Amino acid sequence: MEKKKVSQAVIKRLPKYHRFLKGLLDKDVHRISSGALSEIIGFTASQIRQDFNNFGGFGQQGYGYNVEELYRGIGRILGLDVPRSAVIIGAGNMGQALCNYSGFGKNGYEIKALFDNNPKMIGLRIRDLEVYDSDRLVEYINENDIDIAMLTVPAESAQSLANKLVGTSVKGIWNFSPYDLRMEDSIVVEDVNLNDSLFVLSYYLKDKEEESKNL
Amino acid sequence: MEKKKVSQAVIKRLPKYHRFLKGLLDKDVHRISSGALSEIIGFTASQIRQDFNNFGGFGQQGYGYNVEELYRGIGRILGLDVPRSAVIIGAGNMGQALCNYSGFGKNGYEIKALFDNNPKMIGLRIRDLEVYDSDRLVEYINENDIDIAMLTVPAESAQSLANKLVGTSVKGIWNFSPYDLRMEDSIVVEDVNLNDSLFVLSYYLKDKEEESKNL
Repeated sequence: MEKKKVSQAVIKRLPKYHRFLKGLLDKDVHRISSGALSEIIGFTASQIRQDFNNFGGFGQQGYGYNVEELYRGIGRILGLDVPRSAVIIGAGNMGQALCNYSGFGKNGYEIKALFDNNPKMIGLRIRDLEVYDSDRLVEYINENDIDIAMLTVPAESAQSLANKLVGTSVKGIWNFSPYDLRMEDSIVVEDVNLNDSLFVLSYYLKDKEEESKNL
Repeated sequence: MEKKKVSQAVIKRLPKYHRFLKGLLDKDVHRISSGALSEIIGFTASQIRQDFNNFGGFGQQGYGYNVEELYRGIGRILGLDVPRSAVIIGAGNMGQALCNYSGFGKNGYEIKALFDNNPKMIGLRIRDLEVYDSDRLVEYINENDIDIAMLTVPAESAQSLANKLVGTSVKGIWNFSPYDLRMEDSIVVEDVNLNDSLFVLSYYLKDKEEESKNL
């Protein structure tokens, strides 16, 4: 089967589809049209049909979509059928917040350990996980075949810690450090840049204020 | 001056421009071509020129961009010239992580207080800020003319807390709760949905694994 290259914008919408479809299943809704889905999710019906066509469609003209099939299909596209193991690098507030967040386990992500270079943190337990010395990071990753590193360290140490991951089993970095990592192609980076997100909010605030001034 | 409607994709790129331009200024670079900017930021030169044209351009053909002018211009577009006050609703790990993050103050966002409904948290100080009872939220916001609410509560209580903000001075919600808020037009919502971001990472991991299998 030939695989189409799917745009980043489509991929960023998939988790939202997945979430809303789960909500429908929980309410025992088993079939839905693109129009009705549009109402609850806020994308246009034609956008929705286009998005699903990227993956060979899921619906039949006139019958709507089978919600469960669509939910499972999008889950597979997102790779949620493959369990993943992760470590958190940086056991500060953000690392602890990720560790304590219960949603990841449900979706097949298992956080196995935290790492920090602060002697006061090393040896502590957060939830039921131990905080290890960052010096043991590479050894631990290789022994435990870890897939994902969640990076929650200050900007200054982000790149040097990320560099340690090259050549290990880690294939993806979930980067919370306010630093633009430069990585080889072997490691995928997904950034959660909180400053960027706050700036976008700031833009829309200003935009709304200007709009209301012009009314 | 007529204002063009700028696409969400352009707006989401502005914070990255802002950040990289600051990096150039710190290195005493005062003039740069779209080509050179493309090299360091990773967008194409034509994308960069198009983006800046949305705001009336900033460069002169053949002379490149004045870095400082561009940096300040983008800052203004993002509304960073207007100081903003904020409260954090939910003083758990994520709320504390936001409270302890020092980057916001530099950019003109002042966090003034935290709120929680857990009696064990109320009265605690995080950094130099007090945790107040959520019952006092609306009163505090109105007395202190707060602009932004950072929402870091569980999904179950997100909508009911957000509803309290309607009619107050709050014009924007920075939403970390894994819940899709439904708000009136008077309040802007910017979501930081961590699950969504992790799912996107998961997609790219799977994509890369399939690619390497096909080599």
